[in-house]
Amino acid sequence: MGCIIEEDDGDEVVMEPPPNFSMVEEGIYRSSCPRPCNFSFLETLNLRSIIYLCPEPYPEENLEYIRSHNIRLFQFGIEGKTEPSLATLKDAIRGALKILIDVRNHPVLIHCKRGKHRTGSLVGCLRKLQNWCLSSVFEEYQHFAGIKSRDADMKFIETFDVVCLRQCLHSIIYQYQGYGSKKRRLLYREDNVQKPRITSI
Amino acid sequence: MGCIIEEDDGDEVVMEPPPNFSMVEEGIYRSSCPRPCNFSFLETLNLRSIIYLCPEPYPEENLEYIRSHNIRLFQFGIEGKTEPSLATLKDAIRGALKILIDVRNHPVLIHCKRGKHRTGSLVGCLRKLQNWCLSSVFEEYQHFAGIKSRDADMKFIETFDVVCLRQCLHSIIYQYQGYGSKKRRLLYREDNVQKPRITSI
Repeated sequence: MGCIIEEDDGDEVVMEPPPNFSMVEEGIYRSSCPRPCNFSFLETLNLRSIIYLCPEPYPEENLEYIRSHNIRLFQFGIEGKTEPSLATLKDAIRGALKILIDVRNHPVLIHCKRGKHRTGSLVGCLRKLQNWCLSSVFEEYQHFAGIKSRDADMKFIETFDVVCLRQCLHSIIYQYQGYGSKKRRLLYREDNVQKPRITSI
Repeated sequence: MGCIIEEDDGDEVVMEPPPNFSMVEEGIYRSSCPRPCNFSFLETLNLRSIIYLCPEPYPEENLEYIRSHNIRLFQFGIEGKTEPSLATLKDAIRGALKILIDVRNHPVLIHCKRGKHRTGSLVGCLRKLQNWCLSSVFEEYQHFAGIKSRDADMKFIETFDVVCLRQCLHSIIYQYQGYGSKKRRLLYREDNVQKPRITSI
């Protein structure tokens, strides 16, 4: 008499994350545009939202997927090939950042087409908001963009004004608790907002 | 009369993550060996443990840092230059994985020297445990190793036996709740462990 030990692993679905997939922060992911072969992996993320950075309509199969999984789509169309005007780009990135750091939208996946330039620019600006030093921000950008790294993107990240955005965040009551403190978590506090101090001169 | 709006941002410490830093999973980070300039960034992670994969003694400054921050060090010495024997490597990776997926050790930082080969091999084996398809595991490995990617590491990851490890995990009662289900979180369940079913033949 022998015995077989059966493992109780449940079904053995092979997970295929989209190319260039990575976790950015708790509740924030980045990748290239997911394809149907990535959907079973996406399910494991329990996404609440997707930030889509291309101007093209969202692919039909992906639309079906997000509808059936109750995932909210936020689209900020940034041109991928022609260089967008600085004002347009700033507006899109600022809008996307507001969605991104609002924990009510988490878990959230950021993606464009390849997860290199537009996604990299948005993540770069998030890192600035987190007070990462610029060389680390660039390292991360280059990590994902590889040989396709673009000076224009890095210049954009470098000059992107986070001070202005912070004020803006104050005004929309989402408090980003991370820069310069031990806390890195993104918090949403509706009630207990510290007003900016106003000093008469 | 005018007014100045002062932002209440607290101190503005610039954060410098160690090179090759990234988040692997909730509560799991990877990087190259942190240097003192990275310590203020490390504080934001609130680490409970570090998995250190080099055979060399832990650098004195880092030792001081982890002592003062009550961080536990788990060292699994894997040779970086000469190729370690397969048996030694397997043992080290298996030991490190057990520490890694035990949420009581989270948040945990994995690092070796450059965060490429040894760290990449450990993360690769974790991904196999998570049922990632091999091409995605390799993509991630190569992402961090870049032009320094080693075929031997990828061969090791490919042949690393996760079935055996899963059984092992069963026996040490840490249940990894992730593969093939919607849950990706690493759970520790002391009481409610499902025993492998034994079938007579």
